[in-house]
Amino acid sequence: MKHALSVTREQDFAAWYQAVISEADMAEESGVRGCMVIRPWGYGIWERIQKLLDDRIKATGHENCYFPLFIPLSYFEKEAEHVDGFAKEMAVVTHHRLIQKDGRLVPDPEAKLEEPLVVRPTSETVIGAAFSRWVQSWRDLPVLINQWANVVRWEMRTRMFLRTAEFLWQEGHTAHATVDEAMDETLKMLEVYRSFAEECIALPVVAGEKPENERFPGAVATYSIEAMMQDGKALQAGTSHFLGTTFSSAQNIRFQNAEGQQELAQTTSWGVSTRMIGGLIMVHGDDDGLRVPPRVAPYQIVVVPMLRDTEEDQAILDYCGELVASLNELDAFREPVRALLDRRPAKAATKRWGWVKKGAPIVIEVGGRDVAGGNVSVIRRDRLYREDGKLDSQIVAKGDFVSGAVAMLEDVQTTLFAEAKARLDGNIDASIGDIDALKAHFKASAKPGWALVQWSKPSGEALDRVVQWLKGEKLTLRNVPLGAAEADGACIFTGEKAVERVLVGRSY
Amino acid sequence: MKHALSVTREQDFAAWYQAVISEADMAEESGVRGCMVIRPWGYGIWERIQKLLDDRIKATGHENCYFPLFIPLSYFEKEAEHVDGFAKEMAVVTHHRLIQKDGRLVPDPEAKLEEPLVVRPTSETVIGAAFSRWVQSWRDLPVLINQWANVVRWEMRTRMFLRTAEFLWQEGHTAHATVDEAMDETLKMLEVYRSFAEECIALPVVAGEKPENERFPGAVATYSIEAMMQDGKALQAGTSHFLGTTFSSAQNIRFQNAEGQQELAQTTSWGVSTRMIGGLIMVHGDDDGLRVPPRVAPYQIVVVPMLRDTEEDQAILDYCGELVASLNELDAFREPVRALLDRRPAKAATKRWGWVKKGAPIVIEVGGRDVAGGNVSVIRRDRLYREDGKLDSQIVAKGDFVSGAVAMLEDVQTTLFAEAKARLDGNIDASIGDIDALKAHFKASAKPGWALVQWSKPSGEALDRVVQWLKGEKLTLRNVPLGAAEADGACIFTGEKAVERVLVGRSY
Repeated sequence: MKHALSVTREQDFAAWYQAVISEADMAEESGVRGCMVIRPWGYGIWERIQKLLDDRIKATGHENCYFPLFIPLSYFEKEAEHVDGFAKEMAVVTHHRLIQKDGRLVPDPEAKLEEPLVVRPTSETVIGAAFSRWVQSWRDLPVLINQWANVVRWEMRTRMFLRTAEFLWQEGHTAHATVDEAMDETLKMLEVYRSFAEECIALPVVAGEKPENERFPGAVATYSIEAMMQDGKALQAGTSHFLGTTFSSAQNIRFQNAEGQQELAQTTSWGVSTRMIGGLIMVHGDDDGLRVPPRVAPYQIVVVPMLRDTEEDQAILDYCGELVASLNELDAFREPVRALLDRRPAKAATKRWGWVKKGAPIVIEVGGRDVAGGNVSVIRRDRLYREDGKLDSQIVAKGDFVSGAVAMLEDVQTTLFAEAKARLDGNIDASIGDIDALKAHFKASAKPGWALVQWSKPSGEALDRVVQWLKGEKLTLRNVPLGAAEADGACIFTGEKAVERVLVGRSY
Repeated sequence: MKHALSVTREQDFAAWYQAVISEADMAEESGVRGCMVIRPWGYGIWERIQKLLDDRIKATGHENCYFPLFIPLSYFEKEAEHVDGFAKEMAVVTHHRLIQKDGRLVPDPEAKLEEPLVVRPTSETVIGAAFSRWVQSWRDLPVLINQWANVVRWEMRTRMFLRTAEFLWQEGHTAHATVDEAMDETLKMLEVYRSFAEECIALPVVAGEKPENERFPGAVATYSIEAMMQDGKALQAGTSHFLGTTFSSAQNIRFQNAEGQQELAQTTSWGVSTRMIGGLIMVHGDDDGLRVPPRVAPYQIVVVPMLRDTEEDQAILDYCGELVASLNELDAFREPVRALLDRRPAKAATKRWGWVKKGAPIVIEVGGRDVAGGNVSVIRRDRLYREDGKLDSQIVAKGDFVSGAVAMLEDVQTTLFAEAKARLDGNIDASIGDIDALKAHFKASAKPGWALVQWSKPSGEALDRVVQWLKGEKLTLRNVPLGAAEADGACIFTGEKAVERVLVGRSY
């Protein structure tokens, strides 16, 4: 069976990933080191993610704000651990003017900043400074805010959507009067991320706590949602941090409690980025390109008229126009359906395969014969081929298609999730009892998935030894799943009594 | 009559402007030079602007993309005039790592960038580079894209929303096969801005062409919408540029035309920024704070329960909850109504005046007596006081209020526009025939508005002389209004035969 992409997942997963991004017009290299251009189809998916996630962030009581792109160095100096985590990858602004010199533009030595500014890698410090102005009394708490923004981390090895020098994200920041309230918030937002990923992006994930070595710099506890890619590797798709008083002591976020005493606030932060789109590609893509779950597809149904430069064309266009209009009057997933009539001057087959590669959930073709018969030809992106390997294009009465369109979109969403969920559940091996078996498991297959193993939750140097050993095997600790079965044996790393179960796997 | 702000417009317009921003919780100084924190009410207005303008940008065939924050210096070197316009105010990234030195964080001398990067002041160069990859043939044209982003211009004197080092905006960029198509696009987007400003922000504007000295660096022609503030000054609230081949020749955007020849594309760009919010404040604000037009108000109707810590409170809250639920089921301006129940633990009067200062279009108060009588107390923000100077709070049957709420919101929107439109139209003096009269006009009053004068459209040095003379009078040329009466006399600056009419005024 010939596929639309020049490389398959089996042949070369990394090359396939790049091919999807390119052929689906998602993004491209920009010519600026480590930065990508997000093209309309890729950005359209991000806009859908923004809309649906923003609704959930607001529904849980948060408000959006905007904080400065630039952070003075002195803000970072206040929190040593946080600085250590980010100092190696910060873009630094040192001048505020350019001049011509020997025919070239150079930073003006006369316009050097007294205090260099960092381009935000994350905003705990500058938002913490605002919180310290906003919070005086227990009555001012909780403060629940969120920001949609670009951030910069100067990564040496970049890969589109997964790791870029500049990326887009949302970062939530909250301040609370008590540890319990801040922990509730941390876990509430983790659950928002889990349900959003699963319900909207059809991305099944495991929510859990990251081990100590994987904590956000400055966090007391970090939680994540982890998704399994088709090559079996893990992608951390969102994180939620309980920050304790790390940033409130550095930025002086103090309040008078009900008893009149001064206390430090307990803060949290949580974020999801354009990285989520990389996960969407690697979970749902196939050898014909991307498959976008309907809830986050910029267009859910694309209608391609099969024109032949004859006088029949106008009738076809009218028929398609009516079809799109009736589709757009429907509601799916409690929003208006997004249907598009593709009027571009290109061959119908080129357009069909363009939409297949982009992963529009449903592609409709309409030719003269369809108009005459009152039909449409329907291609579902999640089941592109028949069992005999031929394209599964079904002729359906137009009225029947319209009346079943919402159910079909819902079915595509459900099918994509079920497929990914079966892959995730079927590729976590919880039976591994010692490190030799662990080693063997990850050597036995090209796509070994993950292992869920019992461990004693070592800390400090003991944990370092485990992490180093895993690194030698190209493995990482992912998270300790919430709700996993209780430990009942020995730690496979230390031999001590196990206290919980942790996921181990290769990762992005 | 005592007002809610500590300073009135008459006393000190600039101080009043800052007071509105502060008292309405719109924004605040961030501690980072020239950068502000946009707080929830200010950002909520920006989100409304984004939503409504984005709909119009998409409805005219544009798609959103995202381009890099950083632009290599070499991109700027290709277009001299563009560089000259921005070089003096660019933030320059020179290092990608920090290290500790003598207990301080400093840029790591070992991590100096080979080529410094500019933080985008505008994106013609980097988007032009993308267009040069995208455009090969006339079939690839037009390219119609838009980006919502942050940009940085290192302004020395900043003022919140009006002029900040970092600001938020949208920038549209398009490429076309012919001059005519590019000019059509330039004027189409100017009209989108005009109708958006007038219909959504209730901001009456004059659309016209900027004189040569006010053109965007690199533009062949620049058009603007100009709004009149309550102090009579002009605010440029949006611009649309016909760029000709300036950027297509610098960035090599070439296409093969239908005849097989290579041609340079004709490009445009157009933008509206958070500055628009400064205009909204200075056009609609009054001595009690902001008045937000309903279409861009984050909440259009705010319900304040008057609680007294008695057992009656629950009945009041239930009554208010039902009210808000029925309001949110209504549609106004073809969108769901945005009503809020303000449950915060504060005194009702504090909350009422908080919402008055924020400018929520309608504030409803509900006390025990209202519940008993089936009523609500209604305050319209656009007519806050009765003729006798008392607060105009009207008791209305709850059902009547709900059934009339949409019409009331529409009426507030219309009233705010009409008031501002009357001010604009009433403060443009088109009768001034010589420069002595012009000088006298602007000296005669503290709020002289604008003058529409005939001129010969001088160019080069002749224009410079006019601009310098005006500068001495603290005046600027605003634009040549589209659709103004034809010239029929002499230029008031040069004495030559006039060819058109130009607006003159003080400006922000």
